[in-house]
This record gives sequence, C-alpha cells and structure tokens, in this order.
Amino acid sequence: MIFQAEVLITPREGVLDTQGKAVEKTLTHLGYKGIDEVRVGKIVKMKLEADTEHEAVKILESMCSDLLCNDLIETFSISVKETGR
Amino acid sequence: MIFQAEVLITPREGVLDTQGKAVEKTLTHLGYKGIDEVRVGKIVKMKLEADTEHEAVKILESMCSDLLCNDLIETFSISVKETGR
Repeated sequence: MIFQAEVLITPREGVLDTQGKAVEKTLTHLGYKGIDEVRVGKIVKMKLEADTEHEAVKILESMCSDLLCNDLIETFSISVKETGR
Repeated sequence: MIFQAEVLITPREGVLDTQGKAVEKTLTHLGYKGIDEVRVGKIVKMKLEADTEHEAVKILESMCSDLLCNDLIETFSISVKETGR
C-alpha cells in the first residue's frame, strides 16, 4: 500500500532556536504585536510504500533517527494517511 | 485571547525542491525503498494575541505574504488553536 506521510521536526523546548528568534525579531520590526515563542522547524512529506500503517510509521521513525532528525536538539511527530493500492 | 498558531510552508507542486531531492537520494542510499515525491518545507509555530480566531488567521496570512512565505514558489496553510485568556 502507498501512504502519504508527514514528518514534523521541531526544536526541543529549551533549545535555542536562532531561526525562530530571527523571525520573531523581524516580525516585531515589521510592526506585528503580541507574538511570542516563535519556533521554526521542518516538515518532510513523502509517498511511502509499506504493508501496513504500523510498518509505515516504523520505517519513518527509523528514517528520523538515521537522517531526518537530530535527536539531541529536535523532536519529531509522524502522521500517515493511506492513499491507495 | 492567546492563540497557538502553526504555519506550514511547502514548495509548490512543480517547483524543483532541491532539499527534498537530496533527502530522497540519501534515504535511498541508506537502503530505504519505495519512497517517492519527498518534499521538504518549513513549519513556523508561535503564540499570538488576537481578539478572535478569524483575526488571528488574518494576521498570520499577512505575516506569510510579508515575510514567511515566498508566494512564487511556496504555498502555506494555517492552523490556529485558542489557548486561553
């Protein structure tokens, strides 16, 4: 079966997120008010072949620890949706 | 009211996503099979003060066109959740 997968990778709480700080500062400079705790992360979307949804999630978790996510400073969440076949 | 906002920014369909291609190639090299259409985007999370949910979405749309999103090559989707006050 083919799954449409989405992996959200965000900086861990307490880890300095320089990109988030830069975005927050720039938005404030542009005149936006009342913003706080801006964090910038990554999203990885892909089509993935697997026998079951459970297997798809297992593969994605393995991809995260192998390549996509730096476990020391980032956390990830996985969502998977069957798309057919 | 305070809202927890999430803005997902992904490359438009048809636009070459070099980062996605690099991830796809590397995953294949690492031995992962059956992956396709890998796309890498950004996620921006923030706390935002606004009177209503509708106003919060309007502010975030404005932030996207001002700074967060390059409309020529990227699309965005916004989700907003009230968190109190």
